[in-house]
Formats: sequence, C-alpha cells, structure tokens
Amino acid sequence: MASELSVRRTVEFSETDMAGIMHYSNFFRYMETAEHAFFRSIGYSVTARPGSPQVGWPRVHASCDYHRPLRFEDVVEIRMTVLEKRSKALTYRFQFFKVSGSEPEKVAEGRLTVVCVAHRPDGTMKAVEIPAEIGGKIEVAPGA
Amino acid sequence: MASELSVRRTVEFSETDMAGIMHYSNFFRYMETAEHAFFRSIGYSVTARPGSPQVGWPRVHASCDYHRPLRFEDVVEIRMTVLEKRSKALTYRFQFFKVSGSEPEKVAEGRLTVVCVAHRPDGTMKAVEIPAEIGGKIEVAPGA
Amino acid sequence: MASELSVRRTVEFSETDMAGIMHYSNFFRYMETAEHAFFRSIGYSVTARPGSPQVGWPRVHASCDYHRPLRFEDVVEIRMTVLEKRSKALTYRFQFFKVSGSEPEKVAEGRLTVVCVAHRPDGTMKAVEIPAEIGGKIEVAPGA
Amino acid sequence: MASELSVRRTVEFSETDMAGIMHYSNFFRYMETAEHAFFRSIGYSVTARPGSPQVGWPRVHASCDYHRPLRFEDVVEIRMTVLEKRSKALTYRFQFFKVSGSEPEKVAEGRLTVVCVAHRPDGTMKAVEIPAEIGGKIEVAPGA
Repeated sequence: MASELSVRRTVEFSETDMAGIMHYSNFFRYMETAEHAFFRSIGYSVTARPGSPQVGWPRVHASCDYHRPLRFEDVVEIRMTVLEKRSKALTYRFQFFKVSGSEPEKVAEGRLTVVCVAHRPDGTMKAVEIPAEIGGKIEVAPGA
Repeated sequence: MASELSVRRTVEFSETDMAGIMHYSNFFRYMETAEHAFFRSIGYSVTARPGSPQVGWPRVHASCDYHRPLRFEDVVEIRMTVLEKRSKALTYRFQFFKVSGSEPEKVAEGRLTVVCVAHRPDGTMKAVEIPAEIGGKIEVAPGA
Repeated sequence: MASELSVRRTVEFSETDMAGIMHYSNFFRYMETAEHAFFRSIGYSVTARPGSPQVGWPRVHASCDYHRPLRFEDVVEIRMTVLEKRSKALTYRFQFFKVSGSEPEKVAEGRLTVVCVAHRPDGTMKAVEIPAEIGGKIEVAPGA
Repeated sequence: MASELSVRRTVEFSETDMAGIMHYSNFFRYMETAEHAFFRSIGYSVTARPGSPQVGWPRVHASCDYHRPLRFEDVVEIRMTVLEKRSKALTYRFQFFKVSGSEPEKVAEGRLTVVCVAHRPDGTMKAVEIPAEIGGKIEVAPGA
C-alpha cells in the first residue's frame, strides 16, 4: 500500500521565463512528474500497456500556492501525499521544497484531484470505478 | 476603468498530450494570455519599457476547475474578470468557453492572485503598492 | 492548389526564458502553427475526423537559423513555403519576420521535412503515399 | 579539458502530444539539458553568479534528424560532443539513444551552434570572445 512519494528535479533553463524564475505553470507539470512516479512505484503506468487497465486520469481540479520563486538549476523535491481516495477519484497534495540551498525551504504547495475514466469508442470519456488492481495499492496517508 | 476582457485562442497541436486533449497545465498559460491582453488594454505592458513602472507580478495562488476537455483546433474564449483589488494584489477569474462548437460551452474556470513587486538590486523581489497609473485604471467587476 | 501561407502570432510571456527572449525551441512550435493553418487552408486537418484520411505527419528533419531574438509581445509573421513534394514526404521553409517594429525584420528561417504515415494496429507507424485528396491540393512554390 | 558529456532523461507525459509521441520541439529542450550539464561539469553555470563571467549563449543554428519516435516513460541518453570551437562560437552534436529497451537504440541526432555574447546596457547583445576561464576548459572531441 502506497500513500506518499518524493521525486527530485532540477529546474531547466527552458522552464524559466523573462522574470528569471520558473514559470508558474511548470509547477503543475512537476506535480504530474511525481504522480506518474507514484503510479510506477505501485507497478502501474498511465501508458496503455497490454494487460494493464485501460483507464485515464483527467484532472478536475488543480491548484497551487506559491511562497518563494524557483530559479534555474535549483534542485526541487516534490513530496506527493494521497489526501483522499474515492471510488472514482483521487486527491493528492504536493509540497515543493528547494533542496539546493543550505537547508530545505518550502517554496510551494499544490493539490490535484483526478478522476478515473474509460474511453468510449467515439473518443469521449466516462468516469469509472478505479480498477481494484490499482486502487487496492493506494491508501490515504495517515493523518491526511 | 477596466474590469473585464476576453481573448480567443485556438488550441495548438503542441499543447495537446498523448491523451488527445490539451494538457491541463496549459490552461494556466492561457490565463496569462488574457491577463497580459488586459494589461495592454489599459496601456500598460509587463515588459519593462522606458517610462513605464518597473514592477513585476508573481503569482501567489493559481487554481483551475476542469469541466470538459479541450482538443486540437478547438477555439477557446477566455473571459477574464477582476474579482478583487488590494493595495498590493489583484485576483482574477477566468472562464473558459469552447466557442468552435454549435454553441459556446463552458469548459473550465480558474483563478489567479498576483502580487505587485519591485526587484531589489540583488535580484530578490519585494511586494509594493500597485502604481497609481496602473491601479487607477483597474476596478473590480460589478457584482464580482 | 496551395504552396504558401502566412500566419501571425504574438510572443507570449510563457514562451520567453530567463535570457529575456523567446526560447529557441518555440520557433519549432511556431513552424507547426503555420503548417496546421496551411493544412486547414486546403480543407484538411491533422485531427482524425470521420471521412478524413487517417494519416500522421511525423518530422524527420527540423532546422532553424536564428538572426535576431524575439521578445515578449513582439508580433511575428511566419511565412511558410512548400519547397519539395515527394510521394511520401513534404519539405517546407519558414521565414520569420518581426512585424511589430517600424518595418518587417527577418529574424529567423527554418525548415521541416515531414513524412506521411499510417498507424498500424500495434501503434507503430509506417510511411505511406500522401493521400490524393491532400497531395492533390499541395504544390511546390514557383521558384522554390 | 572537456569535450563530451551524457545525461539521461525520462520522457514526461507533458512532453508528449496527441500523436502519442514526444513532441519534436522537445528534443531541442533536451539538447539544452545536456549543454547545461556540460557547462556545470567544467564548473561554470549560464546563470549569472557573482565572480562568474557574465556572458550568454544565444543559438544561431539548431537542427535535428529524427529516426524513431520517443514515447512516455522512455529513458533517453543524450550524448553531447563538442564538434567545433571558434573564438566566439561553439558547435555541439547530440546523439539521442533510447536506453529503456532491450538494447540502446539511436532515435535522433541534433546539432547546435551557439555564440558567446555580452549584454549591452540597453538590453541588446554583442558577440564577444569566449572567456578564457570557460573556453580553456573546452576542447573539440578527438575525431570530431
């Protein structure tokens, strides 16, 4: 059973903007990096693989509070925590820490709510129960 | 006095992901497109121009609720509304409508809170009062 | 028969980097914007639509020569020209002009070679002849 | 003296497009990842740091030949080689290998020519000689 995961990334030049800091939209890409690493940690990939459940995870809510800017070459630790688990949806928290300075400094915190969907033949999506082989390995973090 | 603005964009191929829909992080880039058009509409640009106030607008909060996916070549109208105006901060709402279908369909709604900052010589940022020549042209939308 | 097309874009804040100019990778996204507008101009979309040929256009070569930087809010005209047309491939040239200054200034020139492919059931791609209903509407620009 | 460097990246979901493969523009962002790691390997960062040469490296030429697509979660090794060193310019080659399959497979090869510039007070750029403390640590790869 998994409820938390941390990943590290180094801020790329192409992720900065003319204000000299990481563009605020990229924090949402970083959240996804942690989410997919979390899925891999339980033996699942969002890629449709033969024998793997053919579901997708569109976002219904995303938010981020920014405390400090991130700059080029800053090393960031993204700590993902499962906050809520419903039959068809998951909510995660992401805490961003800059770890390249003298001591870890919290720079941002975000949330993401995703819904489990199956794809209809016409390309549209339909919310479905999280497959047991995925949901059975995910639990809400203690104290969350 | 300005409190609202609408812009249109067409979803680019490079903004989609392997799920066949616009990546959720790009909604935040679209919000910024509307925000900068709003600033231009009051004769101001976030680009530092000679004679223009040298301030920046880092984000302290960003959020988005997603109702429907956007796909390649969808035409989107982003309606920005000023919800709150403080001495050093502004909060906007962004309503996303897909307008390329038979009738406009609301697909998402987001919020952004930005703080007005000046840059210190060492590169760090400091919250400052919104310059009168900018703030004097912005007002909260009626009923917001 | 079509052999040329021009589109305009305004450089977005999120397309700049900490050097204060448009990140060099974004010129390739701009090329694609022109290419897709060109396809639409001949009544075709790369989106798989019912009744439309189900082909894709992966790139086999892309290049760009940069003469001048582009900055936030610069208005850019991208002039696309069909340079070569083969049974399974097309080569385009893209000339970038900054048109927001006093007179148009050429800032970059790029090339793209794309191959027409069909998707096999296993997800891999196979080069195929350009469908007549698409290829029949495209011609090499005179003098190219 | 350094003339080569390899870095690894895992393809992100946000780097794919609706064709299910990594968007072709992202190969240019990956090249830059290797370039900056190369600079760091010789004790230099493109970030302006106190005591570090205040130069920039705009691109004058970029190209890429694509042999195979990259997909989500593919692990890629980018091998950078210094091909040419002039007084004010450097040319690199980047070989992309997919290393997550049974054996490394070359998927793409790119080139980048960058010019060393200083920034004038008005924000424009001027080509300058590569500072000795940087150039003195870079050499053309044997046989390149």
